[in-house]
Amino acid sequence: MTRFFAKAVDISSGLIMLSAEDTAHMRSLRLRPTELFVVCDGKRSDYVCRLAQRDGGTVAEIVETRPSLGEPTIECSVYVAFAKGDRLDFAVQKSVELGAHRIVLFPSERCVSVPSDMTKKTARLQRIALETAKQCGRGRVPGVAAIRSFEAAVKRAAGAGLPLFLYEEEEELRLKQALEQWTPSNGCESPVDGEGKEAGNTVSVMAGPEGGFEPSEAESAKTAGMVAVSLGPRILRCETAPVAALAAIMFHTGNI
Amino acid sequence: MTRFFAKAVDISSGLIMLSAEDTAHMRSLRLRPTELFVVCDGKRSDYVCRLAQRDGGTVAEIVETRPSLGEPTIECSVYVAFAKGDRLDFAVQKSVELGAHRIVLFPSERCVSVPSDMTKKTARLQRIALETAKQCGRGRVPGVAAIRSFEAAVKRAAGAGLPLFLYEEEEELRLKQALEQWTPSNGCESPVDGEGKEAGNTVSVMAGPEGGFEPSEAESAKTAGMVAVSLGPRILRCETAPVAALAAIMFHTGNI
Repeated sequence: MTRFFAKAVDISSGLIMLSAEDTAHMRSLRLRPTELFVVCDGKRSDYVCRLAQRDGGTVAEIVETRPSLGEPTIECSVYVAFAKGDRLDFAVQKSVELGAHRIVLFPSERCVSVPSDMTKKTARLQRIALETAKQCGRGRVPGVAAIRSFEAAVKRAAGAGLPLFLYEEEEELRLKQALEQWTPSNGCESPVDGEGKEAGNTVSVMAGPEGGFEPSEAESAKTAGMVAVSLGPRILRCETAPVAALAAIMFHTGNI
Repeated sequence: MTRFFAKAVDISSGLIMLSAEDTAHMRSLRLRPTELFVVCDGKRSDYVCRLAQRDGGTVAEIVETRPSLGEPTIECSVYVAFAKGDRLDFAVQKSVELGAHRIVLFPSERCVSVPSDMTKKTARLQRIALETAKQCGRGRVPGVAAIRSFEAAVKRAAGAGLPLFLYEEEEELRLKQALEQWTPSNGCESPVDGEGKEAGNTVSVMAGPEGGFEPSEAESAKTAGMVAVSLGPRILRCETAPVAALAAIMFHTGNI
């Protein structure tokens, strides 16, 4: 069923007020009056609806309420270094599909490109996150945020129950070992967007830019309490590494 | 170190004949005479080399020979349904990075686009596989092949030790369970490109087109011996599913 997101404030007494944008989208889909669709409140509840007319306007009439099925049992934040071209689009889209809780962009020594207008950049990526969340059936729209310093990003990421730092120079510990050694705790990542404050099973995974992290950055991350892990002998592209790690984390925790 | 692939026939008595293309590439990189680079024979051997002049031409002088580190311990073939746009480019690039043994394209009922010129299409994708194999440090270049019928693709894929069919309607078995139940055997996938005949730990993973597989296709695959598995409640895009499954398989077998 086609899926939309609505603000909780627009959901009341069996009816959902649709945004102008969603109304236009439904018109373009030529939804018939009997056709069912889903409106998600972005807080893990799905409302199965059909179109209805009220006071001369089009609204969604709630037929059934049920929990969203698309949310994983862990909250994994994906930290992606700024990158050029469509690499961030890719990282955001795939991270949302694979169940990321949020995506955080950050600068790193070897970044070849840091956007001058971060607000515009994150707004664009947030739009991709929304569209992907609709398509793949998420129960909430993962937030996309940007942090202006590497140190601040590390500090935030280090607060997760399992804070993973993907480092190709790491020779001792593989991602698999780190996950197998992990006992989900009540570790709690500092919230970027006001969510996750009380979250138990939190993981963060931080991936470097095209040229990799500087050794000094890896040292900072370890000092802050992050766990440096390797993804094996192949050199993954900067947009592939976080997505592969996320897929592995979701697989390990039974979420794909 | 910069990486190239050479045909075994061009490697002899401590010297490697470079192709015109690689020579041009090295020139563009402005490699200094003392600078080391790697030439891989595409058969899991790496030769550390430096440039040398012989008979008026430029050749690579072998300094050290060592096994390639980039090859996984299993041979996983990734079967991807024909798709439009750059989705196949993406699937091939990420599959090579994550260690796919080969990539096989096939038609499926709900494919919206099947190329009229398959030779041209596979040549283009083979080029992407080569460039990616250089960048990520593979010990061989995974082959890209196209098969003209769904049935023939299933027949080939079903020959693997663990033949996985990604099916979103599958409600019983998840990829994780299938992998955990798997005891690597001497199952052997029919070779597409003449390789893998004697391979032991072979896996195949088959992913459907944008609209998913038809139920009749899933039945055919199961009848042929394939194991239908789900990747969980979220609906993954046609290019994301095979890549996420491959990452999970490589993670499970200790290869990322």
